[in-house]
Amino acid sequence: MAGTEQRLELEALYADYVHCLDADRLEAWPEFFTDNCHYRITSAENFEAGLPLGIVRATSKKMLRDRVAALREANVYEPQRYRHLVSSLRITAERAGELEVEANFLVVRTVQDGDMTLFAAGRYVDRLQRAAGGWKFAEKIVVLDSRQIDTLLAIPI
Amino acid sequence: MAGTEQRLELEALYADYVHCLDADRLEAWPEFFTDNCHYRITSAENFEAGLPLGIVRATSKKMLRDRVAALREANVYEPQRYRHLVSSLRITAERAGELEVEANFLVVRTVQDGDMTLFAAGRYVDRLQRAAGGWKFAEKIVVLDSRQIDTLLAIPI
Amino acid sequence: MAGTEQRLELEALYADYVHCLDADRLEAWPEFFTDNCHYRITSAENFEAGLPLGIVRATSKKMLRDRVAALREANVYEPQRYRHLVSSLRITAERAGELEVEANFLVVRTVQDGDMTLFAAGRYVDRLQRAAGGWKFAEKIVVLDSRQIDTLLAIPI
Repeated sequence: MAGTEQRLELEALYADYVHCLDADRLEAWPEFFTDNCHYRITSAENFEAGLPLGIVRATSKKMLRDRVAALREANVYEPQRYRHLVSSLRITAERAGELEVEANFLVVRTVQDGDMTLFAAGRYVDRLQRAAGGWKFAEKIVVLDSRQIDTLLAIPI
Repeated sequence: MAGTEQRLELEALYADYVHCLDADRLEAWPEFFTDNCHYRITSAENFEAGLPLGIVRATSKKMLRDRVAALREANVYEPQRYRHLVSSLRITAERAGELEVEANFLVVRTVQDGDMTLFAAGRYVDRLQRAAGGWKFAEKIVVLDSRQIDTLLAIPI
Repeated sequence: MAGTEQRLELEALYADYVHCLDADRLEAWPEFFTDNCHYRITSAENFEAGLPLGIVRATSKKMLRDRVAALREANVYEPQRYRHLVSSLRITAERAGELEVEANFLVVRTVQDGDMTLFAAGRYVDRLQRAAGGWKFAEKIVVLDSRQIDTLLAIPI
């Protein structure tokens, strides 16, 4: 039954993560991570080549908070909306208090006039650690199928 | 274990709901709702402003049936197909015999020549009640990321 | 509890299937099937008319392997990436050691310059059999909402 409970916890975590981003509650986003987390948005090409490059790269929760502050400052007016679809979540490794998880995602962007576009597709390659308040992301690598993303809009994914 | 069973019931409900719509079994659609249900398709903008407006708005199961009848009458020939993807379902509140649930959705439309477009993206904001035959929607608000939708095609979502 | 365990097994199976395809590990793909499996990609139109036609059609695991070999030979250079989103999985029939399952899917294609398109949408209509290593697909019908697909790229879905 431990497996079932863990599965429900993971699904709840990923659902909460996604709703946090889609509701533009960016200030709450760093709380999904451990203090010394690694967060990276990179291309599948770089990821598969083992390159540590990233379109976005943070190595602590503090850097994630700084990023949110910068995004808030830059985007005086932000009329887009983003919608995440996540599927095919699976645990790829399991250690005491630690899980490796991957999942597919698709992000759709809707602009003010109603036009919808495919903004990003790819997969999460994550390492989670058990913390007091539940699971936290110790590492989250957002591996984009595309080699690029609109960098002016390097929002969390 | 009650949590696990409830979770499976909810996933089954949302899967059945989606397959009902995508298979164009619209006559079965009102049966997912309580007799005095509220159903609404609205924009995120209106929803966040607390406006009770809706692109579609019904306050009983009977109105949902009338809507289906009207759609059947209007669409002499309906060559489109719709496909719902639903993810990130989560329970946001729980009371005796009642749940508040939200989930993300994406609807893709395929027209006769095979062209596929993003038809709608957004989230469900739902209130469910326990009934004899399982959970029913007492309230279902379809919150679109877009401010508009092709109103000639205001099909259930 | 048997229902819960079975549900987790199914979700794991579909997640593994999708990640296998999206990671282009096509040589592992036939292993998801029974030896005398039926695999078919067809249009909703043909499927609903009961026609046994298929854009892709295989009646054994060996034919699936041959297909992968042919794809490898043909695609000297394959710069696209595919991403599957699967949702609304449900069991539609259950017999001793056998399940009928359906689920919605969406496949997004990303080409080398980063352009993303909706490649395919539809549903899986599957029959699974219990085998030594877990569930296998005895029948998998990929029912496309579209009447056609880019046949030069008739990759597994």
